[in-house]
Amino acid sequence: MSNKEKIKVGFIGLGGRGSGVCSDTFADMVDMDVEIAAICDFFEERVNTIAEKLVGKNIPKPFCTTNYKELLEQDIDAVVILSSWSTHIDIAIEAMEKGIYVGLEVGGVYAMNDCWRLIEAHERTGSQLMFLENCCYGQRELMALRMFREGVFGEVVHCSGSYSHDLRSEITDGKEKKHYRLGNYINRNCDTYPSHDVGPMMKILDINNGNRFVTLSSFASCAKGLKDYIKRHKEPDDPLQMLEFKQGDVITTVITCANGETIQLTLDTTLPRFYSREFTVRGTKGSYFGLCDAVFLEGEHDEFEGSAKGHNLYKNGNEFANRYCHPLWHNYTPRGGHGGMDWHVFRAFVESAKKNARPPIDVYDAASIMCLTVLSEQSIAKGGAPMDVPDFTRGKWYQRKDIDFDNPYNLDRQYPLAEYVF
Amino acid sequence: MSNKEKIKVGFIGLGGRGSGVCSDTFADMVDMDVEIAAICDFFEERVNTIAEKLVGKNIPKPFCTTNYKELLEQDIDAVVILSSWSTHIDIAIEAMEKGIYVGLEVGGVYAMNDCWRLIEAHERTGSQLMFLENCCYGQRELMALRMFREGVFGEVVHCSGSYSHDLRSEITDGKEKKHYRLGNYINRNCDTYPSHDVGPMMKILDINNGNRFVTLSSFASCAKGLKDYIKRHKEPDDPLQMLEFKQGDVITTVITCANGETIQLTLDTTLPRFYSREFTVRGTKGSYFGLCDAVFLEGEHDEFEGSAKGHNLYKNGNEFANRYCHPLWHNYTPRGGHGGMDWHVFRAFVESAKKNARPPIDVYDAASIMCLTVLSEQSIAKGGAPMDVPDFTRGKWYQRKDIDFDNPYNLDRQYPLAEYVF
Repeated sequence: MSNKEKIKVGFIGLGGRGSGVCSDTFADMVDMDVEIAAICDFFEERVNTIAEKLVGKNIPKPFCTTNYKELLEQDIDAVVILSSWSTHIDIAIEAMEKGIYVGLEVGGVYAMNDCWRLIEAHERTGSQLMFLENCCYGQRELMALRMFREGVFGEVVHCSGSYSHDLRSEITDGKEKKHYRLGNYINRNCDTYPSHDVGPMMKILDINNGNRFVTLSSFASCAKGLKDYIKRHKEPDDPLQMLEFKQGDVITTVITCANGETIQLTLDTTLPRFYSREFTVRGTKGSYFGLCDAVFLEGEHDEFEGSAKGHNLYKNGNEFANRYCHPLWHNYTPRGGHGGMDWHVFRAFVESAKKNARPPIDVYDAASIMCLTVLSEQSIAKGGAPMDVPDFTRGKWYQRKDIDFDNPYNLDRQYPLAEYVF
Repeated sequence: MSNKEKIKVGFIGLGGRGSGVCSDTFADMVDMDVEIAAICDFFEERVNTIAEKLVGKNIPKPFCTTNYKELLEQDIDAVVILSSWSTHIDIAIEAMEKGIYVGLEVGGVYAMNDCWRLIEAHERTGSQLMFLENCCYGQRELMALRMFREGVFGEVVHCSGSYSHDLRSEITDGKEKKHYRLGNYINRNCDTYPSHDVGPMMKILDINNGNRFVTLSSFASCAKGLKDYIKRHKEPDDPLQMLEFKQGDVITTVITCANGETIQLTLDTTLPRFYSREFTVRGTKGSYFGLCDAVFLEGEHDEFEGSAKGHNLYKNGNEFANRYCHPLWHNYTPRGGHGGMDWHVFRAFVESAKKNARPPIDVYDAASIMCLTVLSEQSIAKGGAPMDVPDFTRGKWYQRKDIDFDNPYNLDRQYPLAEYVF
């Protein structure tokens, strides 16, 4: 296994997400172990803007192209694919076929076969793919993971979470270039975006490493949020006024797992609300409730300290995020976006790519997450019928062991360690 | 329609709940419009205790019996049935057949036919049955109902809620008389207790009055909480150590409605946690989130004031419970248990019984709620298959109009009224 000191990275897709990842997060790694070797977007203007921004940071101008196939021909070790949901699968497969280490930005798929094609490309070529789910590295999510691993929650039987983010303004604001979700929301009805909530749960529930998703059932509320928003906030002659949306405002999904745990997910993006991932872990000795950022532990908390009476539990997440600070957040100060999660996920990607090793969120995890969108669409279309979740490991799940997911920096992750307890 | 000034009430079932309802809540109404005419329990000791307690309060000793059939032979106008889940249906039907106005304490059923039998008894005899769901009268629930009726939430597309109550100690504490849930949890696997969460939603969603439940899907996590609790908290030779439980720790249920709304319910009673009903109403202009007791209104709150950043929303429920105080809570000071909800639900029962009128939570509502337990059991047994919810109104739901549910005291419920806005 190679272990490069520095890797050459290409970037495909320089929209809102891609431009920040490339010219901020990865630019911050140029003095460490990354060379920004090549950049690509369908729109030349975007490529030029990023190239200028990099040069302005005294970073050598990368190879620039509007054709991703040209980028994949360059001498690069790894590629970060941040293009649209409808293009990133084909690009990822082509990259794997060229032996390039792939980082794939999150999103669902449109057809189950795309998940199998990712698996086949990996198994045929031996190339690795990491699914870049930053929320797996969220501070609260890793706090909960550490607490679970130390047995603080006891046995975990249920997890829930959501992608709750009011996107009404974002979706309807684009003038000429319409937001990518707009077409999805006009034509589809499903959990288009399950990875931020389900990703971190998979690590606690050992999905694909001793456990697996078995069934998925999904339910959509009626679709009123976007239409109502457009009616009230856009001009009467705005073409948006003509649109009808299939996408329900609240998508509720339940997954059952081979070891008996249940998972409940919510997609909630077209109603007014505050942002929350509602990351929740329920165990026999304790729980974390993301919506009210509360840890509840048997023996430490009283049932009526909670929401019913004194409300004292609310926001004690801060206290526990210190007490059970995960080594990644304790030992490394993240730079870059989304409160530091981005730094951690992209560092895990770079460290894995340098070793050309199995990444902490691998191609089987990617397929297991991305397929949920298609299954959600099918289940909703069938009135909530439970759908079988494919076993992308083809039977290997009950013998596979997770690699050291939350230890990409080769930390000695033997906790509890006294110094973590503030 | 009769309109009695005072009604004679009988009570069947004087366990934990029944004794409080009879000798506290109804005893407080004796100087108003209630005569406690007869009391009954299978255990004579309980009957004697309550009789003594009433006499101690200078209330005339009621007719006492251990045979409910004897009680139903007495000259009573109404009966409150607080006996076990497995007996209260038969008793309710017998009472209706005798023309007695029935109040039925909450709980699910064991067989769908019992719901139909209630409907048939009502339609055959004309006797009324009120389902005594106190949480319909909760302060936050009625705040949300008022806000909804005033249009503050816009169109409501989704509701969620739970019965989240750590009952591990209660269930395992009985020595000779085992807790009634114990047998259920050993033998069944379902949402045994959906009424506290779904009841209040039905009023917002106009269930049985222009809308109805269409499908139910239910999912059970593995059952580890009770066994783990017993192992850690009971003596090694306690017979409880031998028990296995079928009841999953977290039951997740999704209901779809005829008008396109979705409902998500959770039963969560065998893991350590704080009490919450998590009553949540999601609309196109605003929402209430029970878990963190937060109102979020478009234009008034910012999405990042919420849990993601400042946490300023938490607990603003108090502020809104004042601003949108429901007339029932504004004009009447409740006495008795469960923070006042009991007072309101039993006052609604008494007011309805005095008029012998259709009650605010009627026999169709009762059947619609109680059947959810059976459907949940069936859906879980079928791997989450969606079950059809019967239309107990047999087609009348889309023409039926709700009676003035939250106005049992004949309030002039024209709001907004200036005096309600503190």
